[in-house]
Amino acid sequence: MTKFIKEISKVGDYFEYTFLFTQKDVDTFAKITGDKNPIHINEKYASKSIFGKRIIHGFLGGSVFSKVFGTIFPGEGTLYLKQTMTFLKPMFTNVRYKSIFTVKEIISEKNRAIVETKIVDNKNNTIIIGEALIQNNRISYH
Amino acid sequence: MTKFIKEISKVGDYFEYTFLFTQKDVDTFAKITGDKNPIHINEKYASKSIFGKRIIHGFLGGSVFSKVFGTIFPGEGTLYLKQTMTFLKPMFTNVRYKSIFTVKEIISEKNRAIVETKIVDNKNNTIIIGEALIQNNRISYH
Repeated sequence: MTKFIKEISKVGDYFEYTFLFTQKDVDTFAKITGDKNPIHINEKYASKSIFGKRIIHGFLGGSVFSKVFGTIFPGEGTLYLKQTMTFLKPMFTNVRYKSIFTVKEIISEKNRAIVETKIVDNKNNTIIIGEALIQNNRISYH
Repeated sequence: MTKFIKEISKVGDYFEYTFLFTQKDVDTFAKITGDKNPIHINEKYASKSIFGKRIIHGFLGGSVFSKVFGTIFPGEGTLYLKQTMTFLKPMFTNVRYKSIFTVKEIISEKNRAIVETKIVDNKNNTIIIGEALIQNNRISYH
């Protein structure tokens, strides 16, 4: 895993990661979290909703932020301190989305960084927008 | 599921929900999200960390907010618009935590509510604190 680690060193550092979830992922997420809101798992119910079909749980979509921080950018040793998420549009299964990470601030004395976190679709519509505060003592920002 | 639905009607409305995750849940979450940060899944690695053992992903812990909004309080028809989370302390498997929901504001013309969302342990330490904005057109706040 170490080979994927990308350092966060300065304001403006930027990382992109493309991902996709399947309905099986959504069903599994519903099972382990207990979030069985029918809009996510019931095809007939969802077809009559304003979305017209089943949508991915916001927390499953947003989990890409945790995945990237914890395993890639900046990777191992990351502690997750804060995350905000505004869910602007629904996410669907079997669609490729791009998550975009932009470093907004470095708090060097605490080895922390504030990072803008965004998910966009292939037309560059913003789906989720938010901000994270992370800490990684492996990286010294001094 | 309808029988569990609890209306949100006014500022101060309050709901509590107790929950627990197992290591199997954490391993499954790691698999579907790709968040294989070893702090969550590698027992030996985690034993040498500042936590002393494996911790639950913040997004898995926080998913209880989505579960409760989507299925209980206020339940069916809930749209999730925003969530903030500050991760104050680690969460561990096989420990019962309580999630606490307190209505802070009702935006009646849009059928929306701002709800404080909190997870506490059995000593009443706050583990995750945050705020959600939800909408539910099934409930009329007018």
